This record gives sequence, C-alpha cells and structure tokens, in this order.
Amino acid sequence: MSEDIAEQPAGFARLLEAGSSGEIAAVAAEVARRAPRSVLFVGRGTSDHAALYGAYLAEIRLGLPVASASPSAITLYGARPDLTGTLVIGVSQSGGSPDLSGVLSVARETGALTLAVTNNPDSPLAKAAELSIDVVAGHERAVAATKTYTAELLALLMLVEGIRAGDGHLPAEERAALEKLPQLASDVLADRSATELAQRYRFASSLVTTGRGYAYPTARETALKLMETSYLPALAFSGADLLHGPLAMADPDVPVLAVAGEGPGGQSMRDVVARLGERRADVVTIGATDVPGASGRLAVPAVDERYSPLLDILPLQQLALALALARGEDPDAPRGLKKVTTTL
Amino acid sequence: MSEDIAEQPAGFARLLEAGSSGEIAAVAAEVARRAPRSVLFVGRGTSDHAALYGAYLAEIRLGLPVASASPSAITLYGARPDLTGTLVIGVSQSGGSPDLSGVLSVARETGALTLAVTNNPDSPLAKAAELSIDVVAGHERAVAATKTYTAELLALLMLVEGIRAGDGHLPAEERAALEKLPQLASDVLADRSATELAQRYRFASSLVTTGRGYAYPTARETALKLMETSYLPALAFSGADLLHGPLAMADPDVPVLAVAGEGPGGQSMRDVVARLGERRADVVTIGATDVPGASGRLAVPAVDERYSPLLDILPLQQLALALALARGEDPDAPRGLKKVTTTL
Repeated sequence: MSEDIAEQPAGFARLLEAGSSGEIAAVAAEVARRAPRSVLFVGRGTSDHAALYGAYLAEIRLGLPVASASPSAITLYGARPDLTGTLVIGVSQSGGSPDLSGVLSVARETGALTLAVTNNPDSPLAKAAELSIDVVAGHERAVAATKTYTAELLALLMLVEGIRAGDGHLPAEERAALEKLPQLASDVLADRSATELAQRYRFASSLVTTGRGYAYPTARETALKLMETSYLPALAFSGADLLHGPLAMADPDVPVLAVAGEGPGGQSMRDVVARLGERRADVVTIGATDVPGASGRLAVPAVDERYSPLLDILPLQQLALALALARGEDPDAPRGLKKVTTTL
Repeated sequence: MSEDIAEQPAGFARLLEAGSSGEIAAVAAEVARRAPRSVLFVGRGTSDHAALYGAYLAEIRLGLPVASASPSAITLYGARPDLTGTLVIGVSQSGGSPDLSGVLSVARETGALTLAVTNNPDSPLAKAAELSIDVVAGHERAVAATKTYTAELLALLMLVEGIRAGDGHLPAEERAALEKLPQLASDVLADRSATELAQRYRFASSLVTTGRGYAYPTARETALKLMETSYLPALAFSGADLLHGPLAMADPDVPVLAVAGEGPGGQSMRDVVARLGERRADVVTIGATDVPGASGRLAVPAVDERYSPLLDILPLQQLALALALARGEDPDAPRGLKKVTTTL
C-alpha cells in the first residue's frame, strides 16, 4: 500500500503524457461529436467515489444533468430505462465486476453511448463498452485502492475538459496547470504530518469525514480507506447532510476530518466546522488555510478546486495506512476482502 | 417521537383517502400528460431517503432514467444543466430549506417540470414548484422525522403508480393492496420486539445497516434515526457496496441490521448476510423469513417489495426511540439539531 501511494506522482505524469496525446483525447472528441444530453455514472466502492467526482465535473463543466446510480434497478429489478442520448460511464479499477458490465451492456442495447474507465483495458467492462479509457496506473498491489483512484480522477478530469474543449485536447492553460500536479503531489507526500496524526486516532472508536461539492468524494473515499485498512467505523457526510441529523452524534469523542479548501465547496464548509465546534467536536481540516473552530490541519496546496481531490486524498491515504499499522493491522491484506469484488 | 410513530397507520389511511380522490391523482395525471424523459430528485436527510425510494420506483416502474442529486452543483457552483423534459421533484418535510427551493427555481427556469412533495403546502418549496403534493402527515412534534418520512414514501408510491396508470388513478388491484397497509402497520407497531432488541445495543459503540434495491433507503433512514436520537455512529451501505471494502470492518463487536425481504433486493441480501456471518458479525435481519447466518430477526409481513419500505422502517424507528431512552437520551430534543435545517 505504501508503494502504491508513493507511485501516484509518477502515475499522474504518465497519464498526462499518454492521455493528452492519444486515447483520452480521442474518446473525448468522439463524445463531444455525439453530444450526449445527459451522463449516468456507475461504479462501486472507491471507483464510485471517482464516479461521483466525474458527476460533479460533468454537471458543472459541461452543464449536463448527471446521475451516479446504483446498478441494482437494472440488474436486480430488470429496469430498462430509455438511455438514448445518454453517456453511460462505468468506472472500475479491475473492470471485473459483473453488475457493472451488465449495466453497460443493457445501456448499449438501449441506445446509450457507453464508456469504460478502468485500469485493465482487456477487462469485461472495457469490452462491454463502446469506448474505453485505460488509466495506466500499473499493477496495484494492495487490496485497498489508492493509485487507481487518483488515476481515475485525473482521467475523468482530462475527459471532461477534453469534451468541453470540443476537439478532445486540453486548452494550453489547463494543460500547463495539470503538468504541475506531479510535483505538487510529491511535495504533499513528502510531508509526514498525516502519519503523525494517525497516533491521535489510535484509540478512536469511530470517526466522521465531511466535505462538500468537489470535496465530497474525498470525504467518502477517506472513510472507506479507514474502514478497509484500520477497521475503524468511519462515517462520511456531505457538509449539508451532516447538519441534517448526524450533527447530533458529534461530540468530543468522535474525531472529524473536514475537507475545507479555498473554492465554493470549501468555503461553505466554514459554517459546518463552526457548528461542529459548538458541539466541541475534535475537527482536523484538510486545506491550504486554517479554519476557525478546527484543532488542526493537514496542509495541501491551494489549487483550482477541480484539482484538489487529486491532492487532498494523498495525506488521507497516508493516514489510513499509518493508522492501520498503529493498530497492529496489515493494510496490504484487509480481512474479508478480495481485490476484485463480484456482485450481481 | 413515540406519538409521531404511533400515528403512522392513521397517516397512511388519511393519505390514501385524500390522495387517490384528489391532489396526488391530479398531479400524477398532469405529469403523465407532460411525459417527462427523466426524473431528478433532490432532498436532504430523511427526505433524501424518501427521494431515493422514489428514484427506484421511477426507474423500475416508469422506466425513466433517474438521479438523486446533491443540490450543491447548482447552488454552490452555479451549474445550469439543461433540464428541459426532466421532472424535478423536491422532497422536504418542512419545505423550508433554501437550497432545495433554489434548485427547484433554477430547474423551473431551465425548462423542467417541477414538483414539491412536502408536509407544508404553504412552504417556500411548494411555492417554488409548479406542482405540489401535501403528504398530510399532520404536525410532527419530534425533531427526528418519522411519520413525515413514511407519508413521503406513500405519496411517492401513489404518484408513480398514478403516472404509470396514465390517468393518475391507482388501478383497483393496487388500491386494494394499499388499503391493507394501515392495518398491517398497526400490527407491526403492536409487536414490541424492536424495543426489547434495543437493550442488546445499549453498549454498542457503532452499528452497520444494510439493504439493497427498495430496501436501501430503509437502511439509510435507520442509520440516520440511530445517529439523531441515540448518537450512535451508524453506517449504512447498500448490500453490494458493503462487500466493496466496508466488510473488512465487520466483526463480532459491530452489530449489523440487514433488511432482507422476499423480493429481488431481499434475496440478493442472502449472500451479504452469509459473508457477514463468515466475519462472525452479529446480524439481525428485518423481514418475513429467517436468513441463514443471522442471529435474530425483526418480523414484518411479506408484502410486495415496493410496499416493504413503509412497514420495515416501523420497528426500526421504535428501536431508535428505545435505544435513545435506554441510553438516557431525550429523543424529542436531539442535541445540536433544529426541525428546519437551512443550508445554502
């Protein structure tokens, strides 16, 4: 897991190199040519969090109505919604889960434009889809996905911005900004604060993560990493949903990790952190500047809010790894899990 | 909260009476006439769980692509997706949260057919929408929503089946089946098993809820009730997502409540319960028949899987209430919460 985490800056550089010149640009141009009227994302676990990020991007950057849906309506109940004119994107590290391939097959039959985003271009998911993007993250050793997650995020970002550009190619300014990401990611990973913070949570019995907008997938993914590696019950909420009920649960014994960056999503988290502070919750933020009411902060660079999910998750992956080790667990072999999960 | 829970059978009867003859049938007929190509649901907290149930119904029963979306893309990031031909349904007990009214206003401007489902026909949400349904649940005293939740479920069911029928009216067979619900709900509430089960969770430090398909909203809503009233960190997963990571967290110290009925969603939970059993998790199911691997069961009648969410939640509301009392908390006044939550 440690090696997978450390490979992410190189993975970003590889994907930027491979994607811009070739596959992603070609797929983006084809999608732009077909001009879908809406986008439907399907994914499970970590890849569902990447899909959620893609959903925000498509809605905000492309102005398309989007959904991040459960496959069960189609696979269990036989629903056959008319998906003509819809871009259906399946996101999966392995591309091996039958329910996702099933959804893409049905979608393709019912008139959708289908796209697989996977780390395995020979997978059933990639074969079920009309279009396919390889996130070129290389073999992921640990069961808990890290480098395939951020590779999926970057591939979806390049896809959406390529569709927005129309010809599939990133505008020069966007490309220049993205090319700084590998170095920024290296800088973030060199900071050991997250590893130290893990000590603080050694005896926590549960933990809350929260974020809003582009940062909500980060909150969800952080909670999943903590559950997978440290077996810590971790609850993820959008900042808005947290105020609708779960806030009652907050007290000094339930630590909170709040992703609070500089954009609109991060700004709207200031009020959430203040409300948590009133409940005397122990809040650590992830962001570029301190937030009143929080007791600590994991520092990440201030970048365009669209890029933050690629950097913010890095110290949180390190935190999950360090907490698993501090608890005497083996993060490379989480109990009860397999690398490819097959659900129908 | 106890009185709100007890009023649900009467609420069902009232809504069936009021809705079939009038408002819901008229709204359903108008929606059918306008023939939307897709449905977008927005809601927060408990009402988001009702919206999720509505999303399954619309996808499976109407064959429409649906989304249950976060308002933040529109309210925070200014996204203006083209919603022409989309039915946008805002679900809210109070109808008072500005972000939902904001989404419906924007949706209406961009060509959507808008509908508010609320317990307050004079609310900002109802006024922002072109169409409105009053769930006639009466004044809800407790902060934790119970009777407004099941009223929202029943209203959405009547709406969707009315749209499916075309003229807004429920087919005679459907109506006959629904008219049995008030008595079935009374029978379920008369069983005190859930109240006894609460003793078992008195010292639990966290809890997992799970369900799939139509039962997934029940799992989500149960977790929220437990957090709101008992301050118990409760994690809800779809049965499929549970196998993608969170399963590692399962052990004999984390109790699991699994909604496992008789339909396709419930059947697919058998495998999930077995996998939890391998991890020696303490599983109690909610359903009409015992499931191998579970240590106990809250009994509910076997009904069409579409109706189960209206009955399955009843013992789980009783459980949340009883657990709050067993822990010495006041379920009528959860710390840190207000009845109307205003998020932007």
